[in-house]
Amino acid sequence: MARVTILGAGDMGTALATPLAANGHDVRLWGTHLDREIVGLLQGGGPHPRLKTPLPAGVRVFADGEAGAALAGAEIAVVAVTSSAVRSVIAPLASRLAGVGTLLTVAKGFERGPDGQVLLLPDVLRRHHTGPVVAVGGPSKANEVAAGQPTAVVFAGEDAAAVARCRDAFATESYHVESSADPVGVEVAAAMKNAYAVALGVADGLERRTGRPHHNLKAALFPRAVAEMGALAAALGGQATTVAGLAGAGDLQVTITSGRNRLLGERIGGGEAAAAAAAALAGGGTTIEGYAAAAFGHELATAAVASGRAAPGTFPVLDALHAVLYRAAPPEETLWAAVRGTGVPALAAVPARGMAGDGSTPAAGSRRAVNAGPA
Amino acid sequence: MARVTILGAGDMGTALATPLAANGHDVRLWGTHLDREIVGLLQGGGPHPRLKTPLPAGVRVFADGEAGAALAGAEIAVVAVTSSAVRSVIAPLASRLAGVGTLLTVAKGFERGPDGQVLLLPDVLRRHHTGPVVAVGGPSKANEVAAGQPTAVVFAGEDAAAVARCRDAFATESYHVESSADPVGVEVAAAMKNAYAVALGVADGLERRTGRPHHNLKAALFPRAVAEMGALAAALGGQATTVAGLAGAGDLQVTITSGRNRLLGERIGGGEAAAAAAAALAGGGTTIEGYAAAAFGHELATAAVASGRAAPGTFPVLDALHAVLYRAAPPEETLWAAVRGTGVPALAAVPARGMAGDGSTPAAGSRRAVNAGPA
Repeated sequence: MARVTILGAGDMGTALATPLAANGHDVRLWGTHLDREIVGLLQGGGPHPRLKTPLPAGVRVFADGEAGAALAGAEIAVVAVTSSAVRSVIAPLASRLAGVGTLLTVAKGFERGPDGQVLLLPDVLRRHHTGPVVAVGGPSKANEVAAGQPTAVVFAGEDAAAVARCRDAFATESYHVESSADPVGVEVAAAMKNAYAVALGVADGLERRTGRPHHNLKAALFPRAVAEMGALAAALGGQATTVAGLAGAGDLQVTITSGRNRLLGERIGGGEAAAAAAAALAGGGTTIEGYAAAAFGHELATAAVASGRAAPGTFPVLDALHAVLYRAAPPEETLWAAVRGTGVPALAAVPARGMAGDGSTPAAGSRRAVNAGPA
Repeated sequence: MARVTILGAGDMGTALATPLAANGHDVRLWGTHLDREIVGLLQGGGPHPRLKTPLPAGVRVFADGEAGAALAGAEIAVVAVTSSAVRSVIAPLASRLAGVGTLLTVAKGFERGPDGQVLLLPDVLRRHHTGPVVAVGGPSKANEVAAGQPTAVVFAGEDAAAVARCRDAFATESYHVESSADPVGVEVAAAMKNAYAVALGVADGLERRTGRPHHNLKAALFPRAVAEMGALAAALGGQATTVAGLAGAGDLQVTITSGRNRLLGERIGGGEAAAAAAAALAGGGTTIEGYAAAAFGHELATAAVASGRAAPGTFPVLDALHAVLYRAAPPEETLWAAVRGTGVPALAAVPARGMAGDGSTPAAGSRRAVNAGPA
């Protein structure tokens, strides 16, 4: 039996208590200041408001002021806060995390580092934790994990022993865990599948707007999205084969069926301006992960091409998505041009549009990428 | 301008008149004896009863007795009859096809050859036609093709000049055609995606039956399905990379959203017996393509493993699907065991179930495969 502390009482953090409790671990669930209402409900014995399932028996719930007690003696800490809040939540916990063996992260996405570089979330965590970091990928809707429905994921890290410890802690008959030595591939896929889900969601919106289905367009985008995620992973030192598996193709498949990233695409395909649709869907201090990931990913892809780590023309769908999201390019024509390989339509006259927010948000990244090189 | 004759006035055959007419070709649409009602409607100027779209102006429609007139002078003939009818429809036309340059086939699936071997459809066609055969793959819902919605497909053949002629004839701004030199990869994907769509459809049925979604299971099966189709293609001399593209991953993505193959899986996941569900969904002399393809594909996969062209354990999902369809294996447990890599549950006591039909149907193939080797 191990002591495992879950940081973040959102959907996925809370859901992971199910396999951990099934394995008989001492499970502690800590809520951030954004989770106060959820923590109150759970401490009162009620179900999680979104998951609708009660916590497994024996799971102890800690409020945001109780991080020290929650983390005391933990062998594994699970980072399950929304990606945009990872830095602000984790940095203050650094001294308490020092005693924890392994960080397992279900948070995903990108952050900008102190020198302006784009960091994957495990790299962000490594700035606050010297122990091993294990990244989780794969198609994993939280309500199904919480209910003990069959779910297959991949745990990836450079430290094979840490990966094995985490797998032993989490794997059950209904929560299947593959091990991987490719955290870059898993993290790139986990982050970028949200961006590509926006692109594929556009096809759903085109149907809503025109009354004519665009299933063929959506499906044509799918393998190209997987190929581009694989190429980006490879350019960053990961493996395209990882992206072809659960972490990429599998997770993209489930992400394009529901969720806010797909919905953002649907609203854009339906005729709404991208920035307005993203702002309308964001709430509670969160952003739409795919909207931010498209900007960061486009910056990384542009840099990979510029440095020769990827060939020119490797990322047509990402180029198109970026133009749709940040330069008001027409969604259908632009994405279809990406499939056809005819490039992003000329947009010289269209000013770059950043995300609302301060200079540390992806808006800065997107403007930089737009200014720095070709679309 | 070329003369192109489409053989089969079903959904896809009729739909392909749209890009051909857009390119100004002399387009002739011939209906089989099963298409008489459709031919009557089209000759009367009405829309196709399922596509709901009228034929493009100038397309000439021929009834089943007029094959000679329809094919006279054709440079390309499009085989667009349902896969199970290809042999019975095409064999009698052999002498008329002799004058046609290239056959392009949108029919897909397998047939049993005269020596009991499993043939891909282009190989069936080659028995009746000495000219080049070009296979079509990719996500292509017929109603969208007919309406001129964006659609990306792949044309594949060993004869690059024939592929190029077909592409030149069909490609428009909304019907994008990739060329491929891998007809085996395209055909294996085109046929087997229907089988795997049955497997993924089971997850939809589990939700219907249990009230609990199984999106994670469905998504976990997706990349494994693509990997297995790629391995089968490779074992048969094709390329796994072809299967990762439009013809495999792309077509599977659209096939699991609707259609009879997915619906068969849904009914099985919902609790119906496989053979009964397949019989109920079949109609008008047709079979459910994925039901038959699972048996043929399983036979090919079993033979590939037996001969060393694929490693043992390469096809867990296909093994599981075959057990569900033909040996009454429990759907959820069996497919989940395939994802987990724990093998098909023991089914020694369960008698093999064939498809209803005569000895030339896939039932014979499935029994043979069951008798010949390990599941």
